[in-house]
Amino acid sequence: MPSFTVYKGSKEGKIVKSETKKPDLTDDQVLVKVTASGLCGTDEHYKSADMVLGHEGAGVVEHVGPAVKSLKKGDRVGWGYEHNSCGACDSCLSGRETYCPEREMYGEANLDQGSFASHAVWREAFLFRIPDELTDAEAAPLMCGGATVFNALHTYGIKSTDRVGVMGVGGLGHLAIQFASKMGCEVVVLSGSDSKEQEAKKLGAKEFIAMKGKKELSLERKLDALLVTASVNPDWSLLLPIMAPNSTIFPMTVAFDNFEIPHLPFIQKGITIQGSIVAARAVHRKMLAFSAFHGIKPMVMEFPMSEKGIEEAMSTLRDGNMRYRGVLKPQ
Amino acid sequence: MPSFTVYKGSKEGKIVKSETKKPDLTDDQVLVKVTASGLCGTDEHYKSADMVLGHEGAGVVEHVGPAVKSLKKGDRVGWGYEHNSCGACDSCLSGRETYCPEREMYGEANLDQGSFASHAVWREAFLFRIPDELTDAEAAPLMCGGATVFNALHTYGIKSTDRVGVMGVGGLGHLAIQFASKMGCEVVVLSGSDSKEQEAKKLGAKEFIAMKGKKELSLERKLDALLVTASVNPDWSLLLPIMAPNSTIFPMTVAFDNFEIPHLPFIQKGITIQGSIVAARAVHRKMLAFSAFHGIKPMVMEFPMSEKGIEEAMSTLRDGNMRYRGVLKPQ
Repeated sequence: MPSFTVYKGSKEGKIVKSETKKPDLTDDQVLVKVTASGLCGTDEHYKSADMVLGHEGAGVVEHVGPAVKSLKKGDRVGWGYEHNSCGACDSCLSGRETYCPEREMYGEANLDQGSFASHAVWREAFLFRIPDELTDAEAAPLMCGGATVFNALHTYGIKSTDRVGVMGVGGLGHLAIQFASKMGCEVVVLSGSDSKEQEAKKLGAKEFIAMKGKKELSLERKLDALLVTASVNPDWSLLLPIMAPNSTIFPMTVAFDNFEIPHLPFIQKGITIQGSIVAARAVHRKMLAFSAFHGIKPMVMEFPMSEKGIEEAMSTLRDGNMRYRGVLKPQ
Repeated sequence: MPSFTVYKGSKEGKIVKSETKKPDLTDDQVLVKVTASGLCGTDEHYKSADMVLGHEGAGVVEHVGPAVKSLKKGDRVGWGYEHNSCGACDSCLSGRETYCPEREMYGEANLDQGSFASHAVWREAFLFRIPDELTDAEAAPLMCGGATVFNALHTYGIKSTDRVGVMGVGGLGHLAIQFASKMGCEVVVLSGSDSKEQEAKKLGAKEFIAMKGKKELSLERKLDALLVTASVNPDWSLLLPIMAPNSTIFPMTVAFDNFEIPHLPFIQKGITIQGSIVAARAVHRKMLAFSAFHGIKPMVMEFPMSEKGIEEAMSTLRDGNMRYRGVLKPQ
């Protein structure tokens, strides 16, 4: 196999199939055969770039470089959004290498590597073993979507006695409901309409609020935390009154505009607004173990890993019809 | 003394002298003779309201109600922005009664009481003993301004090994510099021009940055925390690059517009934006003890407690000429 297939963005925003030369593996590099890839909203942002898309990978190790220590051919592994942190900065040394200023992100430093591909080459240190309890298609969306919401719930002091709001039932939200519920929290789901109420409750929501047309929301007990997965700037006049004093808001969407919130109510309640992205590796591993232990799995729609399949998955997501995470599978 | 003198706002925004009937003291009420009052930016917001202004009070106990337990005539006490929390809600029970939803704030529930007055009546539970090390005029500005910046520095996990930025050298900023420096932190002061550099360094700043005209700020070591005392929406394109990963921003000004920050850089660095107002009582007491122990004192400009004196103090503050906190003293 002198080359492998990759799917890239292009200036016109069309998905383009291409061949990439298979590099000789050096150091701790690992060649993985992709078996499934999640589709993330962030891929949409990159579809006009000349780079391989996809950063929710799952696959099987096919070859290992000379310095690889623990992975071997046949191991099932996944990988996520970021790789190559420096290992020496304050963030790395304090277990938060996600915030390493030297880290590289998919598509920015590695134009030829991504999970929309037949194969990909990554460093061993940034590959995660997939637990037996999860299929590849189930594991893939955990690599970015799962790691993102788990990190918020795990890293910033949310307790099992807390009441956790999840706004938006989608790729992130439907995983957040499951994680928070299995952590022992009371989960309150906030959605536009009531169309997802049944499903949200099946996933672990205790309470479901359809917000459309509401001028005011009422909750018996206010929220200690709120994960906003739906929009960067939701209607704060509805949401701030249901936040408890000293509660935390996590704006989880990746967007390029300003985050805005009414200044006075937010400082008067002592609210924390917490920036948070995907998990550091130690947290990522806990996320996978926790998912395996509790049977937490994404609900997925499968599409073929092909130009047409990727385009179709992206338009399904764009049109708001994904239930709830798209997964691309090689045919 | 059947009545006492108070200074109120008025529809026209003029300060108006008025007489208030001295109430019979009931329960744990205490009549305090005002000896000094700080002037806070918030007073400006209320100057068109028919209420007694001032919420940085210092004075001497003159009479006590029947249920008062520990205060007695002649005791020196101060009081701040908020009073009457319920004692039963989650915030009160967890030592954060500042965020009690039942609490009352000056001017909202107590139109006849404030520290721009000859006397005021407050509940014993919301009066703080002034340490011997502080004069009344020194203690008064600590009751709101001091308590506000101390609360941010004390309550949200800032450590003595942290590098703390203070943006704005004014009523809040010049106290924040002293507190953070005495807590052992490296303090970096960010100011418009370099006119306050000498003073900021004398107050404890290790580094001083004049921002005017700068397109980029450079710091050898980034900030773990930043208290923004100058403006609700400073130039984040200058400030975000000097924030360390996982650092905390405290927007400390009271303002009625939206707080805005570029979404992506803030979540990508895992930054915390922390709403924080004045200290809960337990923290307020620590603040006074800490100030006494370390000789932390506001730099004040004194004005007479009179219609003219208050107007003059307010215009000095409005014009940006206060160095650094105005204190009104009865003649």
